[in-house]
Parts: sequence; C-alpha cells; structure tokens
Amino acid sequence: MSPELEELYRGFEREMLVPLWTEIGGLMPSHPQSKASPHLWRWSDLLPLAQRAGELVPVGRGGERRAIALANPSLGGRPFVSPTLWAAIQYLMPGENAPEHRHTQHAFRFVVEGEGVWTVVGRDPVPMRRGDFLPQAGWNWHAHHNATDHPMAWIDGLDIPFQYVTESQFFEFGREEISDAERTTPERSRSQMLWGHPGLSPIGTRPETPGTPLLSYRWEHTDSALSDQLELERLGFDGVMEPGHAAVRFTNPINGGDVLPTIRAEFHRLRRGSESTPRREVGSSVYQVFDGSGSVSVGTETWSVSRGDMFVVPSWKDFSAKSEAGTTDSDSGGLDLFRFSDAPIFEALALHRSGT
Amino acid sequence: MSPELEELYRGFEREMLVPLWTEIGGLMPSHPQSKASPHLWRWSDLLPLAQRAGELVPVGRGGERRAIALANPSLGGRPFVSPTLWAAIQYLMPGENAPEHRHTQHAFRFVVEGEGVWTVVGRDPVPMRRGDFLPQAGWNWHAHHNATDHPMAWIDGLDIPFQYVTESQFFEFGREEISDAERTTPERSRSQMLWGHPGLSPIGTRPETPGTPLLSYRWEHTDSALSDQLELERLGFDGVMEPGHAAVRFTNPINGGDVLPTIRAEFHRLRRGSESTPRREVGSSVYQVFDGSGSVSVGTETWSVSRGDMFVVPSWKDFSAKSEAGTTDSDSGGLDLFRFSDAPIFEALALHRSGT
Amino acid sequence: MSPELEELYRGFEREMLVPLWTEIGGLMPSHPQSKASPHLWRWSDLLPLAQRAGELVPVGRGGERRAIALANPSLGGRPFVSPTLWAAIQYLMPGENAPEHRHTQHAFRFVVEGEGVWTVVGRDPVPMRRGDFLPQAGWNWHAHHNATDHPMAWIDGLDIPFQYVTESQFFEFGREEISDAERTTPERSRSQMLWGHPGLSPIGTRPETPGTPLLSYRWEHTDSALSDQLELERLGFDGVMEPGHAAVRFTNPINGGDVLPTIRAEFHRLRRGSESTPRREVGSSVYQVFDGSGSVSVGTETWSVSRGDMFVVPSWKDFSAKSEAGTTDSDSGGLDLFRFSDAPIFEALALHRSGT
Amino acid sequence: MSPELEELYRGFEREMLVPLWTEIGGLMPSHPQSKASPHLWRWSDLLPLAQRAGELVPVGRGGERRAIALANPSLGGRPFVSPTLWAAIQYLMPGENAPEHRHTQHAFRFVVEGEGVWTVVGRDPVPMRRGDFLPQAGWNWHAHHNATDHPMAWIDGLDIPFQYVTESQFFEFGREEISDAERTTPERSRSQMLWGHPGLSPIGTRPETPGTPLLSYRWEHTDSALSDQLELERLGFDGVMEPGHAAVRFTNPINGGDVLPTIRAEFHRLRRGSESTPRREVGSSVYQVFDGSGSVSVGTETWSVSRGDMFVVPSWKDFSAKSEAGTTDSDSGGLDLFRFSDAPIFEALALHRSGT
Repeated sequence: MSPELEELYRGFEREMLVPLWTEIGGLMPSHPQSKASPHLWRWSDLLPLAQRAGELVPVGRGGERRAIALANPSLGGRPFVSPTLWAAIQYLMPGENAPEHRHTQHAFRFVVEGEGVWTVVGRDPVPMRRGDFLPQAGWNWHAHHNATDHPMAWIDGLDIPFQYVTESQFFEFGREEISDAERTTPERSRSQMLWGHPGLSPIGTRPETPGTPLLSYRWEHTDSALSDQLELERLGFDGVMEPGHAAVRFTNPINGGDVLPTIRAEFHRLRRGSESTPRREVGSSVYQVFDGSGSVSVGTETWSVSRGDMFVVPSWKDFSAKSEAGTTDSDSGGLDLFRFSDAPIFEALALHRSGT
Repeated sequence: MSPELEELYRGFEREMLVPLWTEIGGLMPSHPQSKASPHLWRWSDLLPLAQRAGELVPVGRGGERRAIALANPSLGGRPFVSPTLWAAIQYLMPGENAPEHRHTQHAFRFVVEGEGVWTVVGRDPVPMRRGDFLPQAGWNWHAHHNATDHPMAWIDGLDIPFQYVTESQFFEFGREEISDAERTTPERSRSQMLWGHPGLSPIGTRPETPGTPLLSYRWEHTDSALSDQLELERLGFDGVMEPGHAAVRFTNPINGGDVLPTIRAEFHRLRRGSESTPRREVGSSVYQVFDGSGSVSVGTETWSVSRGDMFVVPSWKDFSAKSEAGTTDSDSGGLDLFRFSDAPIFEALALHRSGT
Repeated sequence: MSPELEELYRGFEREMLVPLWTEIGGLMPSHPQSKASPHLWRWSDLLPLAQRAGELVPVGRGGERRAIALANPSLGGRPFVSPTLWAAIQYLMPGENAPEHRHTQHAFRFVVEGEGVWTVVGRDPVPMRRGDFLPQAGWNWHAHHNATDHPMAWIDGLDIPFQYVTESQFFEFGREEISDAERTTPERSRSQMLWGHPGLSPIGTRPETPGTPLLSYRWEHTDSALSDQLELERLGFDGVMEPGHAAVRFTNPINGGDVLPTIRAEFHRLRRGSESTPRREVGSSVYQVFDGSGSVSVGTETWSVSRGDMFVVPSWKDFSAKSEAGTTDSDSGGLDLFRFSDAPIFEALALHRSGT
Repeated sequence: MSPELEELYRGFEREMLVPLWTEIGGLMPSHPQSKASPHLWRWSDLLPLAQRAGELVPVGRGGERRAIALANPSLGGRPFVSPTLWAAIQYLMPGENAPEHRHTQHAFRFVVEGEGVWTVVGRDPVPMRRGDFLPQAGWNWHAHHNATDHPMAWIDGLDIPFQYVTESQFFEFGREEISDAERTTPERSRSQMLWGHPGLSPIGTRPETPGTPLLSYRWEHTDSALSDQLELERLGFDGVMEPGHAAVRFTNPINGGDVLPTIRAEFHRLRRGSESTPRREVGSSVYQVFDGSGSVSVGTETWSVSRGDMFVVPSWKDFSAKSEAGTTDSDSGGLDLFRFSDAPIFEALALHRSGT
C-alpha cells in the first residue's frame, strides 16, 4: 500500500469512516451467507438439564423465568438460536409461579409433552397440554402457574434477537402474584371460548392485540387438520403440500395472516416413508420433532431425529425431512414436525424469497 | 309558472335534461328513506307454497332452480326483498337435481329444517343440514342434488338486486348432469376438511375465489360459539354483544373479513327474556327465525315470530328483538336469529353508518 | 296454464312472492345488458339552456344549486346519466353564491371553459379554471361563489343514483352565508399548498376525508403529464396506454387509489390521427370532450364530437375514440377527453371485468 | 456458586445453552438501550477524504463503488451508522462510471451540493442536482456516470446493516458498460416524466418495483412544499408540524406510503429562530444539514451544525433542533434538514412507538 493510501486509511479511521470497497463481499454477498450454523439439540440432553435447573434455580423476580435458551454455536455464545429467533426450554416445578410481566417481544409456547401448567394472559388462564400451540403477541401481561404436583417443561419461541438487534424492545413488571380467580384451571381459556370456533368471530368484542386473539391452538384440531389432508390425498384430491406431506399454518382469525407480526408457526406431517423436497428460504426456522422418527437435512448436515429434538435451519440453507419407512401405511408411523420462523418479517418488507 | 320558465322546462325535456332543484328532496334526503317496507313472511305460508311448487313445477334448464323469491311489497312487484338483496325459499324433490351453472352473483344457502341435499360447488359435494350456513362466492360452478327420498327446503340469499341495478352480472350454464363422483354423499365436504379447523390454514392450496373457501359453517360450531358467549356472561366476563345477546359473524378464514364481498352473515341468540337495543344502520338486512319465539320490531312494525319466519329491515330503520320470557333461564328457551345484510358494500365504499 | 298452477301463482302474489323461473333471464343475463342507452349531449345545446336558467331561476336554499342533470333516455325520465352516475351542468351568475351544505354523495367538478368561481370546501376557497378537476369526497361542507362579473358554467359528477338505489345518503344544510375570509380569491387553495407537490406529503396534518385531500388537480399538470407520455412514445419508450393514446388517472396522494371511493376520474389524449382500441368494462362511464375533435363510438352508435360534448358509455358497451386526422403531427390537433366512471365500486367488491 | 450449580452451567455450555436469568436485563430492557452512540460527522472532514479517495482509489468491478461509510463509534468498527442503517459519501471523478449491479438492499442518494452525475436505474438516466432525493428500491439494476469535467459527491443511504443482520441480501453484477443511449444527459428522467406530476398516475404502465416508481424528487418541489407550509402558518392556517417547523415525507405515488419498504425519508425546515420539541422514537435516524445553521441535540449531546454535517440519532434517544436566531423573519435564514430512518420496519411489524 502506498504511503498516500495509508494516510487516507488513517484519515478514515480517525473520522470514524469505513470504505465500502474493502467490505462489500461480506456485506453484500450474492446470496445470504448465514452467520449461524445448522445445529441439533437432542431432547435427551435438554430435558435433564432443565430438570436439574428446576431443582437448583429459583424462579421469580430477577430471573423472571426458568428458561434455558438454545445458543447457536456460530453466534458467539449469545442465546440466539438464529440471528433473529430465540428458542428455549422452560421448566416449572409443582406449585411454582412465574410472575407477571409484559414485553414487546412476540412469544409463543409449544408443548411437546406433559401438562398441568396454565399460562395466564391478560388474566385469562390458558391450559397447556401436549401438542398445544400458544401464541401471545407483544405487550400482553402474562404469568404462568403450575397447578399440579409434577413439574412441566415446554418450549418458548420469541423474536428476542430481532428486537435486540433492531432495538425496539420494551419491558414492564406486573403484579408479583396473580389473583385467585386467575389460579383456576378451566378446561378451556376464555379466548378459546370466544375465538376457537372455525370461521366464527364474536361481534361484541374487538381485541387490541397486534397478534391473534386466540391464545391456544389445541392439538386435537391440528391433528385433525393434518389427518384430513392425508385422507384427501388418499382419495385423490388436492390439499397436501406435496405427496405424503401435509402442512398447516397457524393463523390469526382476525385477518387470516400469521399469528404474530414477526413469527410464523406451522405444523408438518410426513406420511410414513415420505420425503420432502429440499427447499430454502430467506430467514431462519426452528423445528421441534413432535412425534415419530426419521431424518432431516439442513445444508450439508443430516441427523436422525426423534421426539423432542430441536434444530435450526439458517437463512437460505436447504432443508428436507424424511420419515421412517414402515411396513404399514398408517399415519401414526410418520414424522410430525412443529416449525416456527421469522418469515413474516421478510414478507412485510418485500424481502422474502424461496427456492427449491 | 311564467311562459319563459315553461319554455325553459320544455327545452330541458327536449334535450334529456332534468333540473336538480325540482328533485333534490327525493334524491338527497337528510337520511336514507327506504323505498322498501318492513315486511314479514311466515314460514307457515312459505313452506306450503314451496311444497306445492315442488309438485307442479319441474326443475332444470330454463328454470334452473325451483326458487321462490320474497318480493318487498313496496318495490313494485320485483323479486327484491330489499333494494340490494334477494331472499328465496328453494325446494328440491326426492332424487331431483338442479343443473350446474355459475354466476357473478354472490350467494349462500341456510337451512332452517331438514337435510338430504348436497350442494356441489366446484365438484365438491357439501352436505346441508339444519343450522348449516353455506356461502358460495360468485363465479363458482354449482349444482344441487337431493340424495334422499324426501323433499328438502332451504333459503337462498344473493345480491341479485344489487348486481341488477349496477349492471355487473355474468352467467354461464355448466354441465347438464354432474358426475357420479359428485353424487356421493360424504359427511363432510372437502372444503371443510381443508378449511374447517379453527385458526389453521392449509399451506398446500390457495383458493382463487373472491369469498371464503370454507363452503359450510356447521351448526354445531355456531351453536357452541353462541353458548360459550352466554356462558362467559354468566361467569362475569366479556364476550356478548349486550346483556343477554350473543352474536357471531361468519368470516372468511383467508382474511378474517366477511364471507362474501357483498353479503354479511351473522347469527344472534337472545337469552330467554332478553331484549336487544334498537339499532339502525345504512343498508338492509334479512332475518330468519331459526329457533325459539319472541317478537321483533322494525321501524313502527312489531310482529310475534317463530321458527322459519322471515322479515326484512330496510335501510336506516330501527330494529330490535325480544325473546319470550320464561320461568327458567335455560338458553334453549331463547330466540335464535339468522341474519344477512349488504353491509360489506357500504363498508368497502366508506358509506357505512349505524346508530342506536 | 293448469288451474293448479294458476292457483299456485295466485298464492305467490298473495304472499308477496315471485318465482325465479319466470324472471331469471332478465335478472341473471349472460353478461350485463344495460338499462341505459348510449347518448350524446351537445355542449351547444347544454350551455344555452344553462344560461337561460341563470336568468330565470334563483339559486339558494330550496334549490341549493342551479344544476341541470343529464337524463339517460332509457332510464324513465330520472336525472340519471347511467344507473349509478349523475352528471350535470352547473351555472353561477356574477356575484352569486351557492349556499353551504354537505352530503354523503361523492362529487367532483370539472371545468371545460371559463373561470371565476371559487368552490369553498371545508372553508378553503379553491379556484376553478379551464381544465381543472376538483374532487370532493362525501360529507365535506362546501359552497360556491362567483367572484367575477361574468357567469360561469362547469360540470358536476356525483354518485347520486348509486346512493339513491342503495339508500345510503345523508344531507345537511350549512351556513346560509360563508364568511368574508372564505370569499377571498387566492390563486391556490390551501389544499393545493399542502398536497399539490409530487410525491410529498405534509407530516403535520392528517385529513379525515374518505377521499383525496387534494381539492384541485390543475390543468397545467394534467396537460404536462399527457404531453410527456406522447413525448416518451416519440422517443421510443413505454408510457402511453396504446399507440398514440396517452392517459392518466387522478389519484389520492394518501393511498395512490382513486380520488373518491365510488368515482374514478381520468384524462385521455389521442394524438392527431390516432384511434383507440374498442374496449368494454363492467360499470358505466361519462366523457366530456375537453379539446379537439374527432368521433367516438359507443356500442353501435357513432358520433362526431367537439369541445364540451358529453356522452355516456353504459355497462359492457364497447367504446372507442378517434381523433381527427391532420397534416401535421402536432399534439394540439388531437382529441382530449375527460372521463369519469363508477369502476371503484366494482373493484372494491371483486365485480370488475373488462375486455377488448 | 455451589458445585451443583457450576456443574449445571458447565452442562449448559457443553450443550450450547444459555440461561435467560443471567441475560434478561441486556436482552429485555425496560426500553431500547441503543448499542449505537449519537455521533456527528462534519462535512468539512468528510468531503476532503472523499476527494482524496477520488484521486487514489479506482472505481469499478471489485470495489464497485467509491463509497465511504459512516461507522458508528460504538458498533465495533463496522460500517454501520446505526444497527440497521448505512450512510456513506460517494464520489465520482470526471468521466468516471460506476458499473451496473443490483441488490436487494433498498437505497437512495441525496445531493447536498454539486451536479453532473446521472444515476442510470433500469436504463433510465436520472440527473442528480443539489437538493434532489433519489430513491431506488431493491433489485433494480443501476449504474452511475459522471458526464462532466468536475468531480461530484453525494450521500447514499441503504439498509445494508438490517439485511446483513437478518440475512436477506442478494447481489448480482450487471453489464460492465452501459450503452450510449444510457449515457445521455436528459434534464428529466423518464420516471419523472411518467410519475412526477402531482396526483396523476399513468394508466399504461405498472411498475414492478417494491418501492416508488418515481426515481427523483426534485429540490424545487421539496423547497416549494416547505415554503408553502410556512406561508400557511403565517396566514394562520394548519399545515406545519409545530410552530416554525415545516416537514414533508417523500412518498410512493402508487400507495402513498414510504418510498422504500425499509427506509423513510423526510425533509424538515425550521424557520429562523425556531426550535423543535424533543422527540424520541423506536429505530434510528440519520440527518444531513442541507442549508442554514443552528444546533441539534441527540440524547445528552449538543452540536452546532452547518451545511453538509451528518449525525445519527440512535433508537429511543431524544432529538431536537434549533435554527439560528436572526433579526429578520426570512425563511432563508432557517435550518433545512434532510432525514432518513428505519421507521417503516417497525411500523410494518407493529413495533413502532414514539414519545415526547
């Protein structure tokens, strides 16, 4: 480098400037080159650590939640499963409560096993059971309480990294203790009573949340919707996403869009012996195996997976899944995958792309 | 009138002109003065005439449908229940078929009693049973067939008058006979298998209809949604429209809006002994009593009503309903009202208003 | 007809019922069959009658406006240029005022010749000059005053028939006299100062009108936009609608959509010797020749037209225009057409169609 | 820490997990705590360095652009003016060309002084002159060429950091050399001829860009719009944002929204001696002083500023500006500020907030 050029670069440094020409490749690659890696977390590793945390770490103010986040190995030790998404296992001991708070981060819970916790959103106690998906848009008050004599684990998904990097997050503490009326353990939440009927909206209430007013998507409905698609395929009709691959999106009954402004949630079912087409898209996804077993490929990685295992698909990495082959064509032997992603961000900003 | 003015008016006539100053009161009133009258049609009059038509009038090409329209007494004998809406009773004899056609008029069927007919929309046979609401957006092929050994009646609602006065209607004949595959009598339509799960959308299909892809809103869901609202009221929570008055709107799961671009459909349930607040709005509504008994007021008219009775509420006329008082507070003794209206037209064009 | 059938039809009549099978052809034709006729009104007939009305008929409360409406010859003498649209010539004598009122009917003014009247909308005096288009959404207070010593004529377009048939209209009288401050005669309206700069929106104000906040679209801009399109065509670039045919739509700067919820307005310019492709669409249009001469065809009618002539194109009738051929290719020798239509109604309700 | 807890934390590390309870304060603060600092870059420092780069660094493939980015002192030396935005000074020598490329990053140019460069977007040469704002949505081909015998500088704004952190960016090289036809130097771009007329949209073309089709917002219009607001204030009418403070937003004529999906651009004018109310909002802004002088405060920093100076307002930091006081009330002595921000991101995702 000539002395003149060196002098110029020193001038840049002094004045807090950086030339584009030394940076363009990293900043403006020909396609997304994710800083995150594909990675798998096994349920058999996650759950015992959560149980141990249940014994050793109190829940409550300060900690607020006993949540343990998946940290992508390529993101510098930060609790980010991808550059935009947070995924954690949360654990509540018998009789414990997580105190009330609210935040702008959009969140959901998904239950891979167990039951007995009620999440109390806007004073409405919502039961959590295996297969239930419980979205909760930003700035709603919420607490949890375990009403049983056994501990319970579930997963949380949030847009914490996205709001952290874009700096849009607010947080408030609520009441230390929820009221007795909120400690009840109804079979159905009030939100489900109002919004859980297909194609029917109550005329008398207008929720103000930026996300879905339906606070629980019950497993029985998700399971039926997936079975119905495979049944239609068997009868020769349209409905599945591709052969042997049923899929539903959780949607907001108020506008038919995604349940949360920044998070999309879906459920995929592969019939026994089926395989999905490799597909990539802008933005990242996290999957949890809900049932069955098979193998999944993310970029150049391939893993055998079974119930509870979680993995991340970074931006623009190919993903495909394959359910275990079997001797019968029973659906129950297939592979059930819960998925969430940051796709609504990119769709809202005209940045979404996908390819096969 | 001076000779000069007479001469001027003759000039207007000769040149196909009309002065505003002689017309303004009628054209631009201080509020809507409907050309239609409030009117009641009793089911006990409608059904026997429909039955008689079933015996005497063949269905098929030419007639296309054995539908008998409610003609508002103030609209000059035209088959318009209001200036924008069509309401008719349709009747199909055992084994009969209504041939396939399609039209831009948006339509629905509602079943106040009986079962046994399948409406075949886009080759998908959709069962019709008491309480079911079956919307069908314009330009979808559709036929009906009665698969049983008894006749069946139901009501049709369409925007025929609106499209007639605005001149936007298209119509096409389809196949004379539907295929054997379409003559099956499944318990659930394919549309219900794909779109009938609360908050869940299939990822693999994207319907192209301008209205809802869900072709039947089953009574069991409507009934539960209304009961749940009254149950929430009993428990002290929000949900009902006003005390003792539960109400749901039928919505399009794709966008959360009305089921059809020009027609809104709702179901109202008044707890026994309840009364709704008089309310008026721009545009007209038609009601059918689904169950129970009580009285309704439209403008200055008041009628006692019971199952099957239909009536029209013209634009800007006050409407209220009152269910029969009873000795118990059982819901079953209340008043169930199905309603449809032209409100989406006015909301889309920033012309909607309502008042109490 | 058999006695039984006669009895059935008598039953229908008694109970205010009409069978579909006797009516379907007229109500549900294979494509729109307009009740309106194509018709031409010559400016040389319109203007003298308006002038004579100026001499004989006072303006003011009661009459409200000295407006003379075009009455389609096939619409029964009603002042409807088409089933949905109103078009009128309005005339104001020197020093006269039209008192303030407001109504839900959406309206505009267009000036084919002259100047000197200010329309005062929401207390903002808006000048009117040849070529200016002045939209004004429903429910804005408005008055007019002629500030000069000569009379002035212009045309009004409104959705009076649409609101009349759908029964959505409200009307209120305002002040008898506007204030001195509103009698000023500024070169530019305040609305133009705020909203008349291309691609620039004021941050400090948010208008509440359902239509455009820009109350005048000045001729100089319309003229330039059309000339620019023809210039681009000459240079070999895209821009015109079809060869020799430039066209712009007047749009709402707040959302880029039509200026009024129910009315679309456009300006078309045919280069000398050009001809537009016959085209039909759902809904009706009214044209006024702004400049030049040529011939126009509507359905099976063809007329020679020149400045000020007005004509109506009913729903689904073919329309084409042809400018006079000339020896030079100067634009000034072409044909300039102002057009308004009811297209936004059909687009909002998924009923729009067009064809060539 | 107990040995058991230490063991638990080692387990977390081994399995790529991080507990929320040690991180929550930083990740979920009570309000945004920006990682970026308020910072000022003086034009008197920026321009000489850009000129020196013009002499020493070639432009062309590899470097692509001679752009020098503002690097926020608290963002680790990365070329990010804020966590989401890129701001740079770009410099082109006489006769130089920047080769054609395209990228998903949304971009604009703004000219604080000079002229002579044409940016060629989609083969349309667009002149750049003092005060012009030139937005260009992602994935449009673009090049630049300096058609004069003097160098020219301008600023670029892009969403490079946002797309870098969310991993949504694509990039493609185009032609090495643009054609002779694109090297012309028209007074107005074709985009301006089509889209630069207030409230008028061409009917014959439908652009496919996700941003505005208007590629240059000319200074003469921006200047008039701001002057008109101050003139209205003087006359006692609404229009300014607050006393002495005029402001316009650059908008997309197709939908009235922001010019780019991720970037908002505005122009603010403070009358001589005026001061704006301190205001904070979610997301970051960058300002450039276009004319006049005064002082600005960002958080706890206050700087005197004059033409060309640039500064950044991090998320949720208070900002206010004050123009120099003077003896006359001439507008020319005030303070003119160009601003861009990432607000559309937060508005699209229901995360926007602001406060005073």
